[in-house]
Amino acid sequence: MLAEIIAVGSEMLTPHRQDTNSLFLTAGLNDLGVEVGFKTIVGDNSHHLVEAIHNALRRADILILSGGLGPTEDDLTRECVAESLQLDLISDADTVLALQARFRARKMEMPPNNLKQAQRLEGAELLPNTNGSAPGQWLQTVIRTADGRTHPRLLILLPGPPKELKALFAEEVRSRLEDLLPQRFLARRVLRMALIPESTVDARTAPIYSRFKDIETTILAGHGEIQLHFLCAKDTQEEAEDRVNHLAELIESEMGDDIFSSDGESLEEIVLLMLGLRGLNLAVAESCTGGMLAERLTAIPNASRNFLGGAIVYSNELKSSLCKVPSKLLNQHGAVSPEVARALAEGIRDRTKSSLGLSITGIAGPTLLDGPDADKPIGLVYIGLADEEDTQVKRFMIPGDRDRVRLWATMHALEMLRLSLQ
Amino acid sequence: MLAEIIAVGSEMLTPHRQDTNSLFLTAGLNDLGVEVGFKTIVGDNSHHLVEAIHNALRRADILILSGGLGPTEDDLTRECVAESLQLDLISDADTVLALQARFRARKMEMPPNNLKQAQRLEGAELLPNTNGSAPGQWLQTVIRTADGRTHPRLLILLPGPPKELKALFAEEVRSRLEDLLPQRFLARRVLRMALIPESTVDARTAPIYSRFKDIETTILAGHGEIQLHFLCAKDTQEEAEDRVNHLAELIESEMGDDIFSSDGESLEEIVLLMLGLRGLNLAVAESCTGGMLAERLTAIPNASRNFLGGAIVYSNELKSSLCKVPSKLLNQHGAVSPEVARALAEGIRDRTKSSLGLSITGIAGPTLLDGPDADKPIGLVYIGLADEEDTQVKRFMIPGDRDRVRLWATMHALEMLRLSLQ
Repeated sequence: MLAEIIAVGSEMLTPHRQDTNSLFLTAGLNDLGVEVGFKTIVGDNSHHLVEAIHNALRRADILILSGGLGPTEDDLTRECVAESLQLDLISDADTVLALQARFRARKMEMPPNNLKQAQRLEGAELLPNTNGSAPGQWLQTVIRTADGRTHPRLLILLPGPPKELKALFAEEVRSRLEDLLPQRFLARRVLRMALIPESTVDARTAPIYSRFKDIETTILAGHGEIQLHFLCAKDTQEEAEDRVNHLAELIESEMGDDIFSSDGESLEEIVLLMLGLRGLNLAVAESCTGGMLAERLTAIPNASRNFLGGAIVYSNELKSSLCKVPSKLLNQHGAVSPEVARALAEGIRDRTKSSLGLSITGIAGPTLLDGPDADKPIGLVYIGLADEEDTQVKRFMIPGDRDRVRLWATMHALEMLRLSLQ
Repeated sequence: MLAEIIAVGSEMLTPHRQDTNSLFLTAGLNDLGVEVGFKTIVGDNSHHLVEAIHNALRRADILILSGGLGPTEDDLTRECVAESLQLDLISDADTVLALQARFRARKMEMPPNNLKQAQRLEGAELLPNTNGSAPGQWLQTVIRTADGRTHPRLLILLPGPPKELKALFAEEVRSRLEDLLPQRFLARRVLRMALIPESTVDARTAPIYSRFKDIETTILAGHGEIQLHFLCAKDTQEEAEDRVNHLAELIESEMGDDIFSSDGESLEEIVLLMLGLRGLNLAVAESCTGGMLAERLTAIPNASRNFLGGAIVYSNELKSSLCKVPSKLLNQHGAVSPEVARALAEGIRDRTKSSLGLSITGIAGPTLLDGPDADKPIGLVYIGLADEEDTQVKRFMIPGDRDRVRLWATMHALEMLRLSLQ
């Protein structure tokens, strides 16, 4: 089964807006065994849209159109599908009543334009939209190609706003597609690794995963992370799961501790989980990352169980007043030094009575305040980790711009903490 | 002038990868007065690609193809353009030598496949790629449509990796397009507003900007912000700038203080700039936002001039130990209360000797630790701002999930600070 997606809307032909619905739709279709063969982005132009629909229907079994179902003159999807397939548009009485009720509930007069949204394609089923005024449409039809042969085709019209489209797909479209398509049982696994080059991961894992022809493996890299995604479809759920679990085990035994998560969890989640299992809590002292490490940890619900908080010690004065770093140490070694990283980790641990203190100090650039110089170039970062027994300090050189240095510094800090909790 | 963009590559038909090159290309083309009328994403499938090229050449003056210029069998762009236009591919001797030199410099043997990358379309000019092995191609040609008429067409082939594509566009394509197209002088302005509904901004500004037919106005909304983008093309730079400045003045006088930035700066930049102008410095105390406010401020280079740092007081103990909040106050009113917001702002100011103390305490959800209850629902946030004279505290109810509550809380805090510095 092959699908195509047409995203309708002139805003997606500007530099400011992008079609993201198709990523969501592609994931949903792939789950049902349907591949996407072509994507088109068309403006609010009936000539272009009719042509795109024609071309898609020649090639694909399923055509999903997103957008162009609003009440304005620019919303042309219904009309263009009708023209392409030479179908009538029929005003749907129930939808008219529902639209009127929707406006009444908001104490607004319904503009006559909105009646457009009640127009159903001849033969189509309307899909109720609980998040907006435009219903979707589901149309199974038959087309005839130039060679005289006929082909069954499914057209699905969905509203453009992602929230409406996603809800409609989940509530109305998915189950109808399941009824139409042969049943498949899917299993997935996601293994995640931090701070390793993609080429290294690929060199070590490709000899393994490439032997599993029945598993689709995708490597995604970005933000200091590598993810290996496995997807397998079988006749039973158990068979599919056994298969991905078997591959995951082989990869885990190859990559060992480099894998921080074997079921998709983020590095922050894993670290908080490990702190919880060990009954420990954490406080941080951040200089160049300015709160990013704490922000990442507190983005996880219930982080407060094992994360106390900490100090953002951007100025030297705060390094002393909040983390008890002696000003002599700062003067002697500078703020970006192993000595200060150690003092920050120990200081925040002491000040907050936490089991662990984690500190970051470094030069994110591009500022010339407080460095960099030949000894202390942009990208130099020291990370300290103090527990009740001792304090370890590591030095990192992180290439890239300010954003990258800051992000990677937090990755290194989380990874250092994870490995110490292993 | 109308352009189309075809992005070539099967990975962009998965849920994991998206064509982002077209946003960059669209911005570059728009600057030169060229609109994009259609975008297509095609997999590594020669049948589909030839068809997409045919369709595009019927409709558009300029066709840009990105991707499919690599050395593998899946890289089909050169071959498919040749087939569509019935042109020969000619091995370019200089490019063969350059490819061989590139591999020699890396002490690698060149695989025979790479010779594909030296194939030039008959009549095309090769565009040297300083960041990769595939040169781009520039081909001015003429096509004949079904009605027998001929049309001039420009095809531009660019490599898919964004870094290579962007450099090639900047270094080779832009100047050639400028020579080909009538000269235009462009002026832009970006006005930014925080925490106002898009519909309110549009209702108040549309009567003004819609009178300026020669200015393209785009409204972008997201992350608690509204941006108004103005773009004007005229025969002289001065004329274009006078025009956008005139519109910007009218909008500024309508929206007044709601506009935080009239030349594109972020809210963080503006706040830091205002602190600098007033000779003030800032420290923060964050509970539910867990470092996000500090992270946003320190993302700006040289933030350290006016930002000292602060405390992340996720636990009640740290509210007391780092910000001197009396535990009696915490017991009596709870951590999420106007009293504690006030004590945090005053406490961090006092502890750090900063001119201003800014605090956030709230319920981000979805956790049930420490609330929420009927009195203190998810989304309830108090923000405190202390200066040497007094402390103001404001209450906000922010709808949405954890991420949204946290982000909007930092927006409210920055906006409260900005208005107090006005």
